[in-house]
Amino acid sequence: MTTKPSLKLTHEGALTALNAAIAKAQEIGVPQNITIVDDGGNMLAFVRMDGAKFLSIETSKSKALSAASHRMPTGGIPAAMEMKLAIASGGRLTNAEGGLPIFIEGVCVGAIGVGSGTSAQDVEVAKAALEAIGAQEKGA
Amino acid sequence: MTTKPSLKLTHEGALTALNAAIAKAQEIGVPQNITIVDDGGNMLAFVRMDGAKFLSIETSKSKALSAASHRMPTGGIPAAMEMKLAIASGGRLTNAEGGLPIFIEGVCVGAIGVGSGTSAQDVEVAKAALEAIGAQEKGA
Amino acid sequence: MTTKPSLKLTHEGALTALNAAIAKAQEIGVPQNITIVDDGGNMLAFVRMDGAKFLSIETSKSKALSAASHRMPTGGIPAAMEMKLAIASGGRLTNAEGGLPIFIEGVCVGAIGVGSGTSAQDVEVAKAALEAIGAQEKGA
Amino acid sequence: MTTKPSLKLTHEGALTALNAAIAKAQEIGVPQNITIVDDGGNMLAFVRMDGAKFLSIETSKSKALSAASHRMPTGGIPAAMEMKLAIASGGRLTNAEGGLPIFIEGVCVGAIGVGSGTSAQDVEVAKAALEAIGAQEKGA
Repeated sequence: MTTKPSLKLTHEGALTALNAAIAKAQEIGVPQNITIVDDGGNMLAFVRMDGAKFLSIETSKSKALSAASHRMPTGGIPAAMEMKLAIASGGRLTNAEGGLPIFIEGVCVGAIGVGSGTSAQDVEVAKAALEAIGAQEKGA
Repeated sequence: MTTKPSLKLTHEGALTALNAAIAKAQEIGVPQNITIVDDGGNMLAFVRMDGAKFLSIETSKSKALSAASHRMPTGGIPAAMEMKLAIASGGRLTNAEGGLPIFIEGVCVGAIGVGSGTSAQDVEVAKAALEAIGAQEKGA
Repeated sequence: MTTKPSLKLTHEGALTALNAAIAKAQEIGVPQNITIVDDGGNMLAFVRMDGAKFLSIETSKSKALSAASHRMPTGGIPAAMEMKLAIASGGRLTNAEGGLPIFIEGVCVGAIGVGSGTSAQDVEVAKAALEAIGAQEKGA
Repeated sequence: MTTKPSLKLTHEGALTALNAAIAKAQEIGVPQNITIVDDGGNMLAFVRMDGAKFLSIETSKSKALSAASHRMPTGGIPAAMEMKLAIASGGRLTNAEGGLPIFIEGVCVGAIGVGSGTSAQDVEVAKAALEAIGAQEKGA
């Protein structure tokens, strides 16, 4: 077979997810950086909320990239492998929590990365984004 | 004087501008990458519309950075200086059209960069964003 | 709300802080690299004193960036997160002590990073800079 | 001969030059980025004046580096060589005017780079810095 069918996340879908993430971050009172990438790791949507840490612009992107590449939530790499893989990936693969893959109809169409709060807050905000677009959760 | 008063663009303002840019891009039928940065060049909001060129993710960012730094629309650097300054700035200063500074109440609070269409289309989309948040236009 | 009022650290304020840091470093006999950035992480002022380590040029900058981004003194990140966040931020977030945010009238207007001495010496020099411009101390 | 005598620019000398540059920039009403490096290209002193372009932080540094390395004012590279050398130097060698070597007693002890104004304004500010520390001018 030369080709196979696929699914792509639209910018409309990405913005719906982004807005839901913003709403959740405001609800819990934690300004966040939120990055949404497609399944190839290219950015689809981003926001830095008022008061969010500017170094976490990059952090949220690394988390989204890592979750899209592994098609798994960030944080699941065994400690013994974490640094090896970070270096081998040119510093782009992170194991910090707050990155979730976006699965629609069983297909990984991209990922979201959230950064500026605690790990738990980052994950909570990412989950709200997934829920808003009917994406399935994938266990860590 | 240790400090001076200033103005900051909020993420709400940035998203209003972003959405107006998307609407204009859809109206003219040209999918775009749109980046909004604050006055220090840090990203505030971004979208890549369905079908926009992925290498223009970076282009739209360079345009926004350049317009924020110079507080002028991109495209005004004399041809003889263009490459010299691109190199001297580590490749971050671009003279490609499609970057506009965002002036509110006379203060440059950031900039928008648009990339994936022709120069004229990029500028048209950027202007729609400025209009949506009542920003003043600054001549090239 | 499209914009919100803010405060900016002037170069005059930054140089006053820099000179106070130099004076303290001379008093304790430890030559230092001293970097002052604004609230978006862009450099405002820098000095490398005679005899200071040249690799700490970069160190002092990372400390200033980290303190400005987190609006907290550097050194407070839990050990388990330290390397994860260093990597996720592209190597820019450091947990080495010697970075202090600069709060004026309750607003974080930037940060100072000091590097070339021991942690305690770096922090002592940074504190002298804050005092010279009437900046509030923020606990680690 | 295993060693030879040399001269080093002190941080006191660098700050005297920096302050003279600031005074000249204020006199002509053009806020500037000013970088002073030693003869090995390592930063000694820096300031970004209120209102100076933030992308010219890097530009002023490239100019200082280039002038220190070539021990000549920037701007003298023949047009045919300019791009070749920029690429061969990893993008660090610039031919944009505003970088001047600092010669004391015939020895190149470092360089100054100025960026945010026109070429003529940048050079004028750099010259004021040299004059303040009794440095000789070296023709382009």
